[in-house]
Amino acid sequence: MIAEKMKSYVENSSVIRAMFEEGGKMAAVYGAENVYDFSLGNPNVAAPVEVRQAIEEIITGEDPVMVHGYMSNAGFEDVRTAVANSLNRRFDTAFHEENIIMTVGAAGGMNVIFRTILNPGDEVLTFAPYFGEYRAYVSNYDGILKAVEPDTDTFQPNLEKFEEMITGRTKAVIVNSPNNPTGVVYSEDTLIKLADILRRKQEELQTVIYLVTDEPYRELAYDGVAVPFVTKYYENTIVGYSFSKSLSLPGERIGYLVIPDQVSDSEQVIAAANVANRILGYVNAPSLFQRVIGKCIDAKVDVQFYDKNRRTLYDGLKKFGFSCIKPEGAFYLFVKSPVEDEKVFVEAAKKYHILIVPGSSFACPGYVRIAYCVSLDTIVNALPYFEKLAQEFFGRNV
Amino acid sequence: MIAEKMKSYVENSSVIRAMFEEGGKMAAVYGAENVYDFSLGNPNVAAPVEVRQAIEEIITGEDPVMVHGYMSNAGFEDVRTAVANSLNRRFDTAFHEENIIMTVGAAGGMNVIFRTILNPGDEVLTFAPYFGEYRAYVSNYDGILKAVEPDTDTFQPNLEKFEEMITGRTKAVIVNSPNNPTGVVYSEDTLIKLADILRRKQEELQTVIYLVTDEPYRELAYDGVAVPFVTKYYENTIVGYSFSKSLSLPGERIGYLVIPDQVSDSEQVIAAANVANRILGYVNAPSLFQRVIGKCIDAKVDVQFYDKNRRTLYDGLKKFGFSCIKPEGAFYLFVKSPVEDEKVFVEAAKKYHILIVPGSSFACPGYVRIAYCVSLDTIVNALPYFEKLAQEFFGRNV
Repeated sequence: MIAEKMKSYVENSSVIRAMFEEGGKMAAVYGAENVYDFSLGNPNVAAPVEVRQAIEEIITGEDPVMVHGYMSNAGFEDVRTAVANSLNRRFDTAFHEENIIMTVGAAGGMNVIFRTILNPGDEVLTFAPYFGEYRAYVSNYDGILKAVEPDTDTFQPNLEKFEEMITGRTKAVIVNSPNNPTGVVYSEDTLIKLADILRRKQEELQTVIYLVTDEPYRELAYDGVAVPFVTKYYENTIVGYSFSKSLSLPGERIGYLVIPDQVSDSEQVIAAANVANRILGYVNAPSLFQRVIGKCIDAKVDVQFYDKNRRTLYDGLKKFGFSCIKPEGAFYLFVKSPVEDEKVFVEAAKKYHILIVPGSSFACPGYVRIAYCVSLDTIVNALPYFEKLAQEFFGRNV
Repeated sequence: MIAEKMKSYVENSSVIRAMFEEGGKMAAVYGAENVYDFSLGNPNVAAPVEVRQAIEEIITGEDPVMVHGYMSNAGFEDVRTAVANSLNRRFDTAFHEENIIMTVGAAGGMNVIFRTILNPGDEVLTFAPYFGEYRAYVSNYDGILKAVEPDTDTFQPNLEKFEEMITGRTKAVIVNSPNNPTGVVYSEDTLIKLADILRRKQEELQTVIYLVTDEPYRELAYDGVAVPFVTKYYENTIVGYSFSKSLSLPGERIGYLVIPDQVSDSEQVIAAANVANRILGYVNAPSLFQRVIGKCIDAKVDVQFYDKNRRTLYDGLKKFGFSCIKPEGAFYLFVKSPVEDEKVFVEAAKKYHILIVPGSSFACPGYVRIAYCVSLDTIVNALPYFEKLAQEFFGRNV
């Protein structure tokens, strides 16, 4: 009795989510301390203290009718101004309140923007490996997601293949940097070349191609790497942001879209995105957390925590013989599976109560994603089991 | 550059929302105390004190990583159990955790359920007057909303016309009681007859017809009127609930779906609704407010406040010669316009800074909706201007 379109989704329901649920069940049986759940991007770092302080200030000092009430579908004006000002300070941009739409996380923002721009049959390009939910976010509006095959040497976008795949039907391109699942940060050089290709193709095809950037990991970069702000490189850029990782608030569903004035038909796109936010049933981003963002706009979680995890896990796995790009951002390692069918490796890891996600969930089989947004103890305690896995697969003591 | 499907939405963007924005601008010019904004169902009663206490307890006593983190897409298990238990206590039902999916308000819940059950071209019936957003919630999934014309004597559903409109394409029926915009509560007699018709038609057409109940106003009933719980009358009932009005939390976007075991293919529908909740970008209902609901499940706002507003406004308008069904629930009066084209009346009211919504927004022209979820002062201060309007339109002193 369910919709045809839902049937395959239910059958192939997110492997990541299924593993998260499995992890919960394993923890109930074996004890949480004996399960090494690297499956989900669910931060193990508490929200910064500013968040709790902000909540206390708001519920004691502000009018509850306003705090918990409806506002414009785009969000509270003062919060949107605070977001615009923060971006302007940090990235030398010139956004104003109207360019910002507060959203139900980045996932909500992506749905809003695809509802806004996609006609049935429109194509959206992205770069493998990519977050599998993009397929749904595009097909929700009858668009077609096409993935550019990966450059597994660097995991930077494969721009040659990309250029070949752009057609008159290409309505948008999704980029995600720092990247889930690879941890790679797209370089300025990459973005300049990407923008050049898009401009050339827009000219040649006489179309508009929107570049949609999914940026939940923007604040999580290591080794002093700068994450370039994409609106500066390409005028038809729309930014989707989430505070899920930067403030450890994934369950609260709070983020924003930036639709710059430079975007083609920006006024119409902004107006339609506001309507889409309403009619998709979000109505508005959760109000208390909008107000929290207004107060905590420049707070962020302790990135050192993730950096220590990153180094500990990366160094450990390399020592055991695994191979992997050293991530410069996000909180994932994308490790080459020691066997071609990485699902065999994922199953083997479960013996030791280690939960990791097959690369095929990201359109990149032969790899696994390990989310290191866990406690350092989880990593330290799991390493001996990774060593056993290495011995099992590489057939030698390391 | 925006999607074709969005263009008409942007052009005809919600009259209610536009008026809400206009009210904000008027308040900035004339002072909030001189604007009588009856346009939006945005409660003017503060959330009950239990909400603030719950927030304080949660942020001081619970682990922030859990409170603000991801959980199963359907919501925290303990919160869903609390919701099920509360319904069972109140309505003598036998729901369990799996029957409950926490959602981003009732609007989120409605989108989830229509994404779950609708194939393109499927028809959904509802009863005029109805909340205009239903059109979008259905057409988002390429369904077709058809409205049964109103019985303007009682504003109970017109069941004869309803039966005639059910076809093999009818996949669902939306009911909304207590009703927006009329304030009418569907009687037990109405529901029994409605259920009989649906069962007969299912049998005759060999189809399944889901009854989707949109219940944000469930707790707002007056004069001791009982609001029947619909799952008891018809087995294929799916309930969409919101705490927006019962706890004055419309901006927080928190509600739930009930998908009973009795529903046809319930396991598949529940599984698909969980997936729909994720892929539509809600991911999960906001986590802190899920936990608040777990603690405040039986709290509710002071209904006496709305009741006093209701009586003051109803008695005042009747005295001036307006005609209107006395509402038994929700917080709306649906008043017959003194002129056939109610938009003329709506414009005339604006002269006095009175904002009301034309009935054509609810597919019922010739009426206006007046939302009395405002302060009593707003009503008392607006009454002299309603009297002037009466004089203007009825052409006599009253």
